[in-house]
Amino acid sequence: MKEFTINFTAQNKKIKVSQGTDLLTAAIKSGIMMHAACGGEGLCGKCKVVIDKKEVLACQTIVESDLNVNIPKESLEIHTKLAHESEEFTKGVVLKREDAFKFSPLVRKIYLELSGPAQDDNLSDLDRIYREISHKFDNLRISTSLSNLKHLSEILRDSDFKVTVTIACKDDALDIITVEPGDTTKTNYGFAFDIGTTTIAGQLIDLNNKNILGTRIAFNKQALYGSDVITRIIYASNPGGLAGLSEAVLDNINEIILDLSGAQNIALSDVYSVVLAGNMTMMHLLLKIDPANIRKAPYIPTTTVFETIHAPEVGVEINPKGIAAFLPGVTTYIGGDTVSGVIACGLAESDELSLLIDIGTNGEIVLGNREWMIGAAASAGPAFEGSGLECGMKAVKGAIQGAEIDGDINVKAVTVDGGKPKGICGSGYIDLLCQMLKRGVIGKNGKIDGTLKSKNIRKTGSGYEFTVAEDIVITEDDIENLKRSKGAIYSAIISLLNKVEKSIADIKKIYIAGGFGNYLNIENAVFIGLLPDTDRSIYEFIGNSSLAGARMSLLSRDAFMKANDIYKNITYVDLSSEPKYMDEYVASLFFPHTDLGRFPSVRL
Amino acid sequence: MKEFTINFTAQNKKIKVSQGTDLLTAAIKSGIMMHAACGGEGLCGKCKVVIDKKEVLACQTIVESDLNVNIPKESLEIHTKLAHESEEFTKGVVLKREDAFKFSPLVRKIYLELSGPAQDDNLSDLDRIYREISHKFDNLRISTSLSNLKHLSEILRDSDFKVTVTIACKDDALDIITVEPGDTTKTNYGFAFDIGTTTIAGQLIDLNNKNILGTRIAFNKQALYGSDVITRIIYASNPGGLAGLSEAVLDNINEIILDLSGAQNIALSDVYSVVLAGNMTMMHLLLKIDPANIRKAPYIPTTTVFETIHAPEVGVEINPKGIAAFLPGVTTYIGGDTVSGVIACGLAESDELSLLIDIGTNGEIVLGNREWMIGAAASAGPAFEGSGLECGMKAVKGAIQGAEIDGDINVKAVTVDGGKPKGICGSGYIDLLCQMLKRGVIGKNGKIDGTLKSKNIRKTGSGYEFTVAEDIVITEDDIENLKRSKGAIYSAIISLLNKVEKSIADIKKIYIAGGFGNYLNIENAVFIGLLPDTDRSIYEFIGNSSLAGARMSLLSRDAFMKANDIYKNITYVDLSSEPKYMDEYVASLFFPHTDLGRFPSVRL
Repeated sequence: MKEFTINFTAQNKKIKVSQGTDLLTAAIKSGIMMHAACGGEGLCGKCKVVIDKKEVLACQTIVESDLNVNIPKESLEIHTKLAHESEEFTKGVVLKREDAFKFSPLVRKIYLELSGPAQDDNLSDLDRIYREISHKFDNLRISTSLSNLKHLSEILRDSDFKVTVTIACKDDALDIITVEPGDTTKTNYGFAFDIGTTTIAGQLIDLNNKNILGTRIAFNKQALYGSDVITRIIYASNPGGLAGLSEAVLDNINEIILDLSGAQNIALSDVYSVVLAGNMTMMHLLLKIDPANIRKAPYIPTTTVFETIHAPEVGVEINPKGIAAFLPGVTTYIGGDTVSGVIACGLAESDELSLLIDIGTNGEIVLGNREWMIGAAASAGPAFEGSGLECGMKAVKGAIQGAEIDGDINVKAVTVDGGKPKGICGSGYIDLLCQMLKRGVIGKNGKIDGTLKSKNIRKTGSGYEFTVAEDIVITEDDIENLKRSKGAIYSAIISLLNKVEKSIADIKKIYIAGGFGNYLNIENAVFIGLLPDTDRSIYEFIGNSSLAGARMSLLSRDAFMKANDIYKNITYVDLSSEPKYMDEYVASLFFPHTDLGRFPSVRL
Repeated sequence: MKEFTINFTAQNKKIKVSQGTDLLTAAIKSGIMMHAACGGEGLCGKCKVVIDKKEVLACQTIVESDLNVNIPKESLEIHTKLAHESEEFTKGVVLKREDAFKFSPLVRKIYLELSGPAQDDNLSDLDRIYREISHKFDNLRISTSLSNLKHLSEILRDSDFKVTVTIACKDDALDIITVEPGDTTKTNYGFAFDIGTTTIAGQLIDLNNKNILGTRIAFNKQALYGSDVITRIIYASNPGGLAGLSEAVLDNINEIILDLSGAQNIALSDVYSVVLAGNMTMMHLLLKIDPANIRKAPYIPTTTVFETIHAPEVGVEINPKGIAAFLPGVTTYIGGDTVSGVIACGLAESDELSLLIDIGTNGEIVLGNREWMIGAAASAGPAFEGSGLECGMKAVKGAIQGAEIDGDINVKAVTVDGGKPKGICGSGYIDLLCQMLKRGVIGKNGKIDGTLKSKNIRKTGSGYEFTVAEDIVITEDDIENLKRSKGAIYSAIISLLNKVEKSIADIKKIYIAGGFGNYLNIENAVFIGLLPDTDRSIYEFIGNSSLAGARMSLLSRDAFMKANDIYKNITYVDLSSEPKYMDEYVASLFFPHTDLGRFPSVRL
């Protein structure tokens, strides 16, 4: 097969590829992050490149000769640091719950000063260790791998029977992963990860004192292969596709590990544990488990529970004897990230009826208490993440995150960083909708009032649009999209309540989790009908609860074991087969709702 | 470093070795099996070779030039097929107990016709399998490795949800080791092994019907590196020594596997399980666990219990997803082979007081019933295996296994194969001693009566010797050696009885296990004072009980789990620290015993 050289001129990168390779693949292989929201299907039109002054789609262009390729800036995936990479977002209010579970890290180090063997104490070397530690672990079954036995007798005797054993909790048993001479207990670190479709968040934890030593958030590199789970699942079915997706997210994970441990001068060999929480598709892709049937009816994952395994089996680069543990999920739609959130907020331990709403790429909702839980996924779509909207963007530099509209319909938009607006993020849209409703720019049905005199209202081929800032608009299609999203979440909440014959008034606590973090204005969210109109004091922002639950599991075996109770105890409700869900959904396709009686505090 | 070519002329084998290599190592490397009883320390003098008509010890001769080496026949390890490789020996009377445990092989195949997923039955693929099988296994914890998940969804759907799962029992959990399309339950095979210091015995079992498809016995190839465990442990401390010893016994194991499965046209991929029983040193060497401290006081093994692992971790060549399980031991001196024997004979399940005597390279003894067990190792030495005696040999072709002496002190010796006598094996020595006692050739103290007129009695530099056949003698040193061996075993039995304040009359059953098999004449063994003088009907030969217990464990998870009870319940008695043991031992250094009252049936 012939090979050709592709020269990406702007990036100054050259790569040799086989004849027939497409240019998007060539770019990815040479390490250039391009937009490819549709997964290279030629649909999204975002991977434009210029060859000989002619614009083509990289994914649709097949290499048949040596080429000079110019990738314009707008085709490059932006890797700006996320705006809400803040302690507040990542720690969140969840820190209040940090002591809810006994401190007992999934991987512990224990220093032992063993008495040496004698004629009247002739236990084997291994049993001598077991005898000393078993009572510390409720006499759980203990085992160790053959490799740790090969030189155990020498290690014990060379160290005068003073050794540090590193013990990993694996399900209902213990695994001694290392036996080292002397006292090395001072160094024991772990990472908690939330593996999101859009973003990956990781935290480095000192497992001796629970301290968070650093947090990093990065865009999921799988975005190169598709912006949503569906396109990625399709991409995974190509030869090498699944491996590529797994490598992409492993790149994210290992970069964060290297970055955070490097910043703290911590050796990777002192990191023995990683706990990961993510949705079902993310877990399948990470672990290279064929995800094909997740997107085909009746939407069955291969597994919802993932055994704790050795880190190298996943490809996570910590101490090779270290472990990777995964929060278990319920179904394709209620993943380990949601279960992790339930751990984080304490819903499953409370007597009071509580509601957890995780608004991310989808909206997962869990309702219940210590006795019972039901959960559903609202097909909210990624609108609140700024995706699929005319000027939507993630909450990064230049994103409008709030807006005020005055009586003359002038808009004052505020960006995340205070700089020039480049687009609108989720919380910005909610603020805008709220203001537009209040100023009459849109009606309850979400249609822009074309009769209103304002330079900011303009008719286009597909309806009206409203100008928020220079070159930044919100269209009627956008509003429709947002309305459907908020309707999906609100009607899901009501349907779950109906299912158990409860009402909003019965809910004593509402936890808001997800990318919104503390940036969501509750008042405005209620105003547009996204959240129920109830006592505002029962709302609590818990930020990235998936990350928080992973961290709590890393720090406490009890928390991790609790996750196993939780996933078994959540009854999944398939909203599409709930008889009244569709009525509820349609009724919620107004601002705030068809039934204004449900939103007494909202006065339009 | 210079290299030289060594030409082993008689074997027509050439090998290049580095300067400084010894000739024994060179011979071993070129695949020639030489005697090296002392492990190459220059002590046993058995590895004689001839260079330029000069006789030298191979182990003490360093290569400094190209050489022609002639290895005389007597320096070659004899690899004759073992005489008692018979169904009787390997199955033994133990077959009576074959149904003592529920049939539930350690690895089982189950064919499943699963109902496919539906909207109202949306379990994950893995849970769908778990749901179907968990009730078949008392709801034990089930897991599977990540590798089995990667393509599970495709396998299930391609096979219309008709699959065969192969399930391994690992301790108190189940591990799905393969999921295959269609019904493959017809092929499921396993091997049971007894890993002895001298011999390796293996059996191929059809796990669908318990049939023994074949048995092989081979000499342990580790003999190349030393005839007993001590020399092998010393050899293991050399660079590469431990690996060499492990490879040697793995060679044995894999040859037997290949040989037996080949004979039955069984593919190795259809063999999923191997159960191995062996003494503590054999297990350490096989698994490459440093055995150094087994031979240093206070004689501590690294471990007495070995986790069930994947076959490739050991190096056993069956289906790479298959498992290797090991019978657990008690201490350095009571290994998995003895525990396996206890399973085989049923001592631990009986209300009656029973005694198990395993006479091999050492003598292991277990006394007890279902309530309690005590065990000891008698330092009997390998005399009853023919080792360390002037004309001793294993029970192979040419070995005298029985003898009659007439009134004129003429000897009629019978060999194993009826052919020309080459030496004397264990049972032959017992018969000879018995006859010599009866005919007055020796007295109660074991000394040859030099006053007796017989051409067969001759005085040498170190006392008298008795000619058994042409060139085959039994010396006073041999008799002393055998007397010590029988005394060690008998006094160990008495000491265990004393320990629990019981007498021989309290024993309701005596199991004789080991290489003797059915060839040991009980009457003669009692006559020389090796076995207690009690009701002959309570004696039962159980042949290779270590192999039988391994086979029973392979066929029944309950039997394998029982081994875990057994090893915990056997209290090890260190005879050397028993106050009265030495008196008992000294008293037994007569034929049959100092205290003739203990042997009422023996009339000299």
